[in-house]
Amino acid sequence: MWDVLFTNVHLATMADGYGEIRDAAIAVKDGRIAWLGPQAGMPAAQAVTVHDGGGSWLTPGLIDCHTHIVHAGNRSDEFEARLNGATYEDIARAGGGIMSTVRATRAASEDELLRQSLPRVLSLLAEGVTTIEIKSGYGLTLASEAAMLRAARRIGRELPVSVATTFLGAHALPPEFAGRADDYVDEVCKMIAPLAAEGLVDAVDAFCERIGFSYEQTERVFKAAQAAGLPVKLHAEQLSDQRGAALTARYQGLSADHLEHLSAEGIAAMAAAGTVAVLLPGAYYFLRDTTPPPVATMRAAGVKMAVATDCNPGTSPMTSLLLAMNMACTLWRLTPKEALAGCTLHAARALGLHDEIGSLEVGKRADFALWRIARPADLSYAIGLNPCRGVVNAGKLRSPAL
Amino acid sequence: MWDVLFTNVHLATMADGYGEIRDAAIAVKDGRIAWLGPQAGMPAAQAVTVHDGGGSWLTPGLIDCHTHIVHAGNRSDEFEARLNGATYEDIARAGGGIMSTVRATRAASEDELLRQSLPRVLSLLAEGVTTIEIKSGYGLTLASEAAMLRAARRIGRELPVSVATTFLGAHALPPEFAGRADDYVDEVCKMIAPLAAEGLVDAVDAFCERIGFSYEQTERVFKAAQAAGLPVKLHAEQLSDQRGAALTARYQGLSADHLEHLSAEGIAAMAAAGTVAVLLPGAYYFLRDTTPPPVATMRAAGVKMAVATDCNPGTSPMTSLLLAMNMACTLWRLTPKEALAGCTLHAARALGLHDEIGSLEVGKRADFALWRIARPADLSYAIGLNPCRGVVNAGKLRSPAL
Ligand SMILES: [Zn+2]
Ligand SMILES: [Zn+2]
Repeated sequence: MWDVLFTNVHLATMADGYGEIRDAAIAVKDGRIAWLGPQAGMPAAQAVTVHDGGGSWLTPGLIDCHTHIVHAGNRSDEFEARLNGATYEDIARAGGGIMSTVRATRAASEDELLRQSLPRVLSLLAEGVTTIEIKSGYGLTLASEAAMLRAARRIGRELPVSVATTFLGAHALPPEFAGRADDYVDEVCKMIAPLAAEGLVDAVDAFCERIGFSYEQTERVFKAAQAAGLPVKLHAEQLSDQRGAALTARYQGLSADHLEHLSAEGIAAMAAAGTVAVLLPGAYYFLRDTTPPPVATMRAAGVKMAVATDCNPGTSPMTSLLLAMNMACTLWRLTPKEALAGCTLHAARALGLHDEIGSLEVGKRADFALWRIARPADLSYAIGLNPCRGVVNAGKLRSPAL
Repeated sequence: MWDVLFTNVHLATMADGYGEIRDAAIAVKDGRIAWLGPQAGMPAAQAVTVHDGGGSWLTPGLIDCHTHIVHAGNRSDEFEARLNGATYEDIARAGGGIMSTVRATRAASEDELLRQSLPRVLSLLAEGVTTIEIKSGYGLTLASEAAMLRAARRIGRELPVSVATTFLGAHALPPEFAGRADDYVDEVCKMIAPLAAEGLVDAVDAFCERIGFSYEQTERVFKAAQAAGLPVKLHAEQLSDQRGAALTARYQGLSADHLEHLSAEGIAAMAAAGTVAVLLPGAYYFLRDTTPPPVATMRAAGVKMAVATDCNPGTSPMTSLLLAMNMACTLWRLTPKEALAGCTLHAARALGLHDEIGSLEVGKRADFALWRIARPADLSYAIGLNPCRGVVNAGKLRSPAL
């Protein structure tokens, strides 16, 4: 006896990267996939609830595996000032840039962070997203980083979405540590244990860049994460090659993210370690970057590629994962199948959750999205259309708009 | 006595290009704006219905002034084939390209065209769009062009949106006229009178390009439009400078659209004639074009710039006007105020409707959009977020999602 059965659907299973089953059915028991296959070959089991999919496509629920979606304020004033001719210096002098988000986030209560983040989260949820990774990194004190991560956990409790949290204390140097980056890294390392003890941290991340933290500082953060038994990931090679991807691979990191300036050595190290490349075309687009990540070389090397929004107020104010898929295809020539795997199977791996979610396979959690499309490539092709007609969280069907 | 009053709103009036009134109210009588101003200075008139805007921003309803949104089928199969390495020749040999849309559109009934176009139209309507321009141009026979335009008119009758129709018979050379482009242009000119007599044509357009129709052929179409008393507009200078913008200006055209390869002479002619420049960043993005239109020069010359989706299956499968605004800012450095004027005041002018819609002014039609935003720049800044909280068509409030 199944709990729920979806009939009259076409499945993009994404098992081993893609896989289609047309005229299929999929059954759920205790929130997990109990059976799937061609409807004609369905066993005679019964289900408490049967949903007729009406010929929809059914994919794994989408996974946005890299976001900074919890924050206060936005930076549209800077966006406008820059377009009116202000330089980055003008904006920094006026207190703009990432520190304006840090100030707003520090000033916001946990409730206020949740309230302000809600429209962004709902935008993703309307598009079939069932799992979101959420980073800290605008608090930069133990108390304020904790508030961000608690708000992230509450999103996972109060809305129909799973949340994976990432501690990103090493995101930027707070002004009170100006000229003392190593001291701040010490602080960051000390924050890990109490945040982890409160159950707020699923992974640890850093921003390894000339304008962020050095290779050595990043490695100190990784060592502290390792000591706490937490997996690592990294903002790596976005603006320059800092050998961050190879460092991440050496620590068996879940993912290295951005990667526009990734070297051949970095690719080889990621391939060998199974570290996922998380591609963030929204930031590339918004910053008008012109160096694409080495997609063809990564593909040839067998590096698994995920795609995410990087939702953040400064460099990617993007809350559409479908649009990130289109940008990955249009700007960087991923195929639609790669883009879909990048927001399902490989995104799950970038979060260390590939045994639990990311594909339609018996035993995995029943997180699905239902789509009114002619073929899966439509998801990457359309720009600004949301063909989602239903979302399933652990077997429970909901409407896209909450 | 007013029919409807919106209180507790901030107005982006867009009169003369921008204009803000904070803590304002706006009143409607007989579907038109009867009064607007600071709420503190509101006259003592009464209204049948009062809506508290709750501090929302209220703008003119958005106007998408260049779309090919009525068509059958899509071209995601081509999109996928190209990303899998197929050349344009491979695709043409397989019957792809614009002719695949022509075949699908010719095969579709008016009802079917309407049914297939509906999700795209609803996507625009959810974002505060109250007027859409819709072109023919995938039928290329009198009967099939008429079916497209009738479907467009039905969208305007059956949904809460105003539709402006444009006859684009000179969009592509149908296969039955291969090698006889001049004969086809004769046919196109002959189609104008019967379509206009049925009330299906608000303007006449053509695709003036090496791969489209020549300057001389375009002028023949313009002369036929002029003879029928219809205004003209043109797909001009998208891939090369064909002097199409200057030709359009010479015929007092409403707009010249695309304009990536617009010359200084074209700019001067447009400025002198008051022909609007309709910018279509979706096509530029989707085609990975690298030549931006001369925005700074047009700005300096006083050419009015509109922004539209160009929604079409081959080169801009885009159904988000807010995203077109973001692309115009991000890729081409329009300011957020220019982008908003481009989807309101100047878009109205591109349709010859600037006395009727496009700004908040007493006497204009009460087409509004209500937004949950901190400032108007948010509309151009956010990528993939829809902050629309209500739409007003001729004074009637509706929810964004129909
Ligand atoms: Zn990031
Ligand atoms: Zn067009």
